[in-house]
Amino acid sequence: MSAKERPGQVSEATTHRLSLLLRGLRVLDAAGTATISSSALAERFDLNAAQIRKDLALYGEFGVRGLGYRVRELKARLTSLMGLDRSRTVVIVGAGNLGQALADSRNFNGEGFRVVGLYDADGRKIGARSRTGVPIRDVRELPAALAASRPDIGVITAPADAAPGLASQLASAGVPAILNFAPVRVPPLLGSVVKNVDLTLFLENLAYQLARRGA
Amino acid sequence: MSAKERPGQVSEATTHRLSLLLRGLRVLDAAGTATISSSALAERFDLNAAQIRKDLALYGEFGVRGLGYRVRELKARLTSLMGLDRSRTVVIVGAGNLGQALADSRNFNGEGFRVVGLYDADGRKIGARSRTGVPIRDVRELPAALAASRPDIGVITAPADAAPGLASQLASAGVPAILNFAPVRVPPLLGSVVKNVDLTLFLENLAYQLARRGA
Repeated sequence: MSAKERPGQVSEATTHRLSLLLRGLRVLDAAGTATISSSALAERFDLNAAQIRKDLALYGEFGVRGLGYRVRELKARLTSLMGLDRSRTVVIVGAGNLGQALADSRNFNGEGFRVVGLYDADGRKIGARSRTGVPIRDVRELPAALAASRPDIGVITAPADAAPGLASQLASAGVPAILNFAPVRVPPLLGSVVKNVDLTLFLENLAYQLARRGA
Repeated sequence: MSAKERPGQVSEATTHRLSLLLRGLRVLDAAGTATISSSALAERFDLNAAQIRKDLALYGEFGVRGLGYRVRELKARLTSLMGLDRSRTVVIVGAGNLGQALADSRNFNGEGFRVVGLYDADGRKIGARSRTGVPIRDVRELPAALAASRPDIGVITAPADAAPGLASQLASAGVPAILNFAPVRVPPLLGSVVKNVDLTLFLENLAYQLARRGA
């Protein structure tokens, strides 16, 4: 976390660390652990103790001197801070392998998120179902569905050439957050938050590290 | 890019920016553009001009005063710096939706990367092929295949409980880089570089941003 960060504009790296911390707290709470120090937390879940303290300091006082963190209380406060105390609804546009993988994923259908629709333009897919039974609907039905169900998050797993148009469509319909997996960058649109996740960038990061190591 | 960064240990954010810059340069080179300023580059590809100059400064002098960057030369040097001047071979372990999506992806079978194997433990999948025809092999054949073909990158798209064991197996076989998509963190192993990509973290980042905006 950079010294410049404030809650409204923390980096992706920071929210990823908070997510991992929260997962650790869930495990501890389920196991009945009442309190834990930042160093024990760090060791148990492969985190960094100083970083945990710095990240949490952004949001106020959490630890109790000499005692550490109260697990259940910190879990509840982090859940609320992360916006995970309510379920977010998700529509997925693009029912290729990746779209279906996400529609069927336990993590996209867990405590915090619920897939409410899966759409595609391919007539051979429309009417079929994903492995876990999510029906694939005609993307032409998307505008009416967006107006009726007002989902929180739109996930784009369509081909690159379709992605910008779909993003505009989602943003125009008032979908406040867009997660774009198509290999083309979508800029923030009409007040919607856009997160571009290009899986190739992770492969290229590894290629870079291999090159630096002379491998 | 932090002031502390050196080429051997730049952040993921930095390599992602360099990847996007390189993509822009490829487009420009293909269109016959010979030179371009950092500000024109930034505007054209939705990047940040000051950041481009800072990122590149890490690797030496690139721009020519009054002229900007020579597109083809910068493309060639970045390609080499990023380790993308040779093709990296990739094995994918886990032929579920995500594994097959990656095996079939153009980006995992493009200039820099080539999928050389797709493995699964499920007898109903073994012997079948992905949509583009990548054969799904028995994961029990993996050790022999790793010894014979020595792939550069191992991608784990298996369930969480199988991931740590598979990562150990890849690292023990000398696979120098591992990209783990299973929702469990794999630590660096036996000298292998490990990159954990948990897609749920991106959804949680959006949930955080929505909560901060009061949405």
